[in-house]
Amino acid sequence: MVQTTNVHQKVEKLESGTLLTPGGFQSGGIHSGLRYKKKDFGLLVSDTPASAAAVYTQSHFQAPPLKVTQESIEKEGKIQALVINSAVANACTGKEGLKNAYEMRKMIAERFHFPEEYVAVASTGVIGEQLPMEKITYGCETVEVTKDGASDFQRSILTTDKCEKTACYQVEVEGKTVTIGGAAKGSGMIHPNMATMLGFITTDATIEPELLQKALSQSIERSFNQITVDGETSTNDMVLAMANGYVDHESLSEQHPDWDGFQYGLQLVCEDLAKQIAKDGEGATKLIEVNVSGANSDKEARIIAKKVVGSSLVKTAVYGLDANWGRIVGAIGHSEAQVDANACDIYIEEQLVFSNGTPCPFSEEQAVEDLDNEEVTLSIHLNEGDGKGTAWGCDLTYDYVRINASYRT
Amino acid sequence: MVQTTNVHQKVEKLESGTLLTPGGFQSGGIHSGLRYKKKDFGLLVSDTPASAAAVYTQSHFQAPPLKVTQESIEKEGKIQALVINSAVANACTGKEGLKNAYEMRKMIAERFHFPEEYVAVASTGVIGEQLPMEKITYGCETVEVTKDGASDFQRSILTTDKCEKTACYQVEVEGKTVTIGGAAKGSGMIHPNMATMLGFITTDATIEPELLQKALSQSIERSFNQITVDGETSTNDMVLAMANGYVDHESLSEQHPDWDGFQYGLQLVCEDLAKQIAKDGEGATKLIEVNVSGANSDKEARIIAKKVVGSSLVKTAVYGLDANWGRIVGAIGHSEAQVDANACDIYIEEQLVFSNGTPCPFSEEQAVEDLDNEEVTLSIHLNEGDGKGTAWGCDLTYDYVRINASYRT
Repeated sequence: MVQTTNVHQKVEKLESGTLLTPGGFQSGGIHSGLRYKKKDFGLLVSDTPASAAAVYTQSHFQAPPLKVTQESIEKEGKIQALVINSAVANACTGKEGLKNAYEMRKMIAERFHFPEEYVAVASTGVIGEQLPMEKITYGCETVEVTKDGASDFQRSILTTDKCEKTACYQVEVEGKTVTIGGAAKGSGMIHPNMATMLGFITTDATIEPELLQKALSQSIERSFNQITVDGETSTNDMVLAMANGYVDHESLSEQHPDWDGFQYGLQLVCEDLAKQIAKDGEGATKLIEVNVSGANSDKEARIIAKKVVGSSLVKTAVYGLDANWGRIVGAIGHSEAQVDANACDIYIEEQLVFSNGTPCPFSEEQAVEDLDNEEVTLSIHLNEGDGKGTAWGCDLTYDYVRINASYRT
Repeated sequence: MVQTTNVHQKVEKLESGTLLTPGGFQSGGIHSGLRYKKKDFGLLVSDTPASAAAVYTQSHFQAPPLKVTQESIEKEGKIQALVINSAVANACTGKEGLKNAYEMRKMIAERFHFPEEYVAVASTGVIGEQLPMEKITYGCETVEVTKDGASDFQRSILTTDKCEKTACYQVEVEGKTVTIGGAAKGSGMIHPNMATMLGFITTDATIEPELLQKALSQSIERSFNQITVDGETSTNDMVLAMANGYVDHESLSEQHPDWDGFQYGLQLVCEDLAKQIAKDGEGATKLIEVNVSGANSDKEARIIAKKVVGSSLVKTAVYGLDANWGRIVGAIGHSEAQVDANACDIYIEEQLVFSNGTPCPFSEEQAVEDLDNEEVTLSIHLNEGDGKGTAWGCDLTYDYVRINASYRT
């Protein structure tokens, strides 16, 4: 599939691509005994030190591994390895938790002869439990990386996720093919104490850390930050990008003619992974996409889109195949963005259901059919300006309540 | 029950009091044919023009009746009657909806020989349908008010509510008894298109409109604005207060020695009604109260309290009798207020479950017992300052999904 971007750059999606498709990356995943049987310990390594960039949870209760990763990246802006465990999030674990995260970093650094600051650390799982360091040590000593280890890594990072999440896109830089791959996990923002949405992006592009950070932050604003399963922010959320310069081209900057193409490719990887997380939301039966156009700014459009897709009443209505546009009105109505109720048009898929401040006649039968798909699109045109934005979420079902009301046993 | 306030004023709750307990008010409610069988049309009248104050929904899609009420109050600050229908919210109804709301006001004004601007109008029910004016006309021509009509009125304003909501408190002003009563409705903020949280407060105190407005706004900040059922804001939310000066005392102002007592009594009426709404939330089995203390300001405390009580994950955990403090941490963590994760203490009822950034040992058995009550209290002490605040909500249950996923039939 070849997509043409706004900037007339060619971006190609590789359906079977992974975070190991970009040159110079290897990974692996094993069972270290943290979980009953499933893989629970992963490692991602770049053949050479890679420019690194990351965004972290905004939670006041940021978990220790994120602090350690931040410290690593701040040193030189380079990372060569990421080590991760699932099952235990190492969150709300105080000083001991921080010591354990440092220890995990040190073990990988020593075994692979990397400087400690070239190692990033992540954990995902139950909040408020200390890492069982015997098992973590076993993992650090045992995990191996290969060029075929993508799926092992992808599985090792999952908690309540129902499926692996991966994406891969290619763009052209100076006529050469640059690949951007990624893996992610996340289902409930916090499952019965399961913390985390995580994304790991790899690319063989050549780019300095601060510019990678810029491109990543911008991509995340329009992707990971635009999904919501239940409005919660976890203690361990993180997206980490590594660019190892495996493809030899002039270092990317905003002045580079292929900057826009790279930025767009990166955004598509993030968007693809983000949508996979939304679709796999706890108890979800479908992905909901909300498109807002005609807002005063892109930012306002994104705010409204996220408000609508996060509304419990919109989510239950979609689950119930109920073309209940009054709830969309309700959600738009209490967003902070500027809205003129009389100028706003609302569509359920292709059908206009509300316009000029009053309801429009529409086919309920068609609406039920439209809502009965795996992916449902709601569109809102505000007729205020040129701003547009999209957000993704999922329906709210009995299973969400079942999953989250059950005891932590 | 005699409560002593912060300001050493005596406030007494009248368990069987209503919005007709204050002197000089009458009300009634009838079946006008909007609903199948239940009462759907109500009227509240003061013997004399009363000082009026109101707060309205912040929704961009404010419904026509609210506009008409606002116009009425702005004229002289006086109201003598409130007319209300349930079943149809007259929201998202454009110019015709506005014309109908004016018509409703006019009919009551003419029949009772009030100036039009002495009549307030409210509607609650389905969004996006025009009022059936034949039935509204019948209601306006037929409804009667008496001193015994409190329950009729209270029932006529309900939609999906499972019970009438009423509260009444008495305070002393210049040694005389001043009574403050109220009625409310609200279950889901928007039920399958059912719009609205409404509150009507009556008092026989003597007070100018602008000071009543001040007292009301302040009370609402700590009551109606601190409840959440599902995070939604309706198109028709309104709280209206009427003070008819039936008790002869010097007009209340902030300089009056009994101002604080009146303000506190008004706040208790609002708080009482607000809690009744939260407890009757769609699908709810229990009321959740979240108390925050030690915040930098009262405002920050209220923000955090509302964030926690509105968290889907906290709500489902309480439903599941799951002492899952990690979710409370999650909800506090992503509030905008200032929080030091290492200084924060969290209690489930009387048990300390989190302190100094780490979990505390506690009895799970006791926690399950505590959570298995009709009212559950969660407390958070931030150790930052003196700010405190409370919010109320309800658990999130299968029934919420069932109620909201069903077709609008």
